[in-house]
Order: sequence, then C-alpha cells, then structure tokens
Amino acid sequence: MPQVKVFITLKPTLLDAQGRVIENALGALGYDNVKQVRMGKYIEMEVQGDTPRVEREVREMCDRLLANPVIEDYRFEVVE
Amino acid sequence: MPQVKVFITLKPTLLDAQGRVIENALGALGYDNVKQVRMGKYIEMEVQGDTPRVEREVREMCDRLLANPVIEDYRFEVVE
Repeated sequence: MPQVKVFITLKPTLLDAQGRVIENALGALGYDNVKQVRMGKYIEMEVQGDTPRVEREVREMCDRLLANPVIEDYRFEVVE
Repeated sequence: MPQVKVFITLKPTLLDAQGRVIENALGALGYDNVKQVRMGKYIEMEVQGDTPRVEREVREMCDRLLANPVIEDYRFEVVE
C-alpha cells in the first residue's frame, strides 16, 4: 500500500512562535549557530489506491482537514 | 548556511492518539482507504558549520531538546 509523508509548515511570512522558542532554548544550551527555526507537522499514513488517485486524494485531505490553507503550506511524497 | 530538516515520530510500538483522531476524521469525510496514520513533528532550521559538525550538533540537539528519546525516534537531513 502506498506510504504517504505529509509536511505542513507555517507560511514563511508568519511569525513562528514555537520556532522562536526552540531557537532561544537551543541558544541557551550553547547552540548559537542555529537560525531560522520553523516548527511544523509531519504526518505518515498508508493510502490504498494507485498513485494518481492517492495524490489527488491526499491533496484534498490536506485542503479539507490536515492543513489550514490560510496560514499553512503543505507538500507530500508518495512512496510506493 | 546548511539547511537541516528534522523529522520526529512516536516510536512505532506506542499508540499515536493524534494519528487515530486524524484517521477517524478522514474516515468520516469518506476517505476509508487511509490506514496507519502517525502524527509527528517537522523542524526546519539553518545551522552554521561544516557538514560533519552540523550532523554531530543536530544529533545532540535532538537528544537533549528536540526529541524525547524515551518515546520518540528522529531522523534528519542536512541540505547544503
């Protein structure tokens, strides 16, 4: 069954508060060479169907449920 | 500056409650061909340094802060 990996990130123009917190915490641990931390979501799932159908349906799932298209971008990979 | 992508997932033996909720919600929307949904975290960041140093430091950051090694697995990619 095709394995799908979905990556959801905040749109680049939006302030990523979680990313800032992580960046500050890493700085406090001594990692001051880390910049531009962005925190997102990662979803793995198995989707039955041929690849064109899976791609079409996963795009729909992202638009309808998994991502918020107003503030988030998404991309996904289908692995046979 | 090298771009790092970190993927953090619950260990496979643990029940992923968020993943189950997403699977049920997708089923309710008519996508009953989706199984084994696992929800994780995705972190993008820029880390200054040569690749061996970046890889070593990112592994440390995951062990010390980004992931909980007791219940989570992580992997990462360094893109020059």
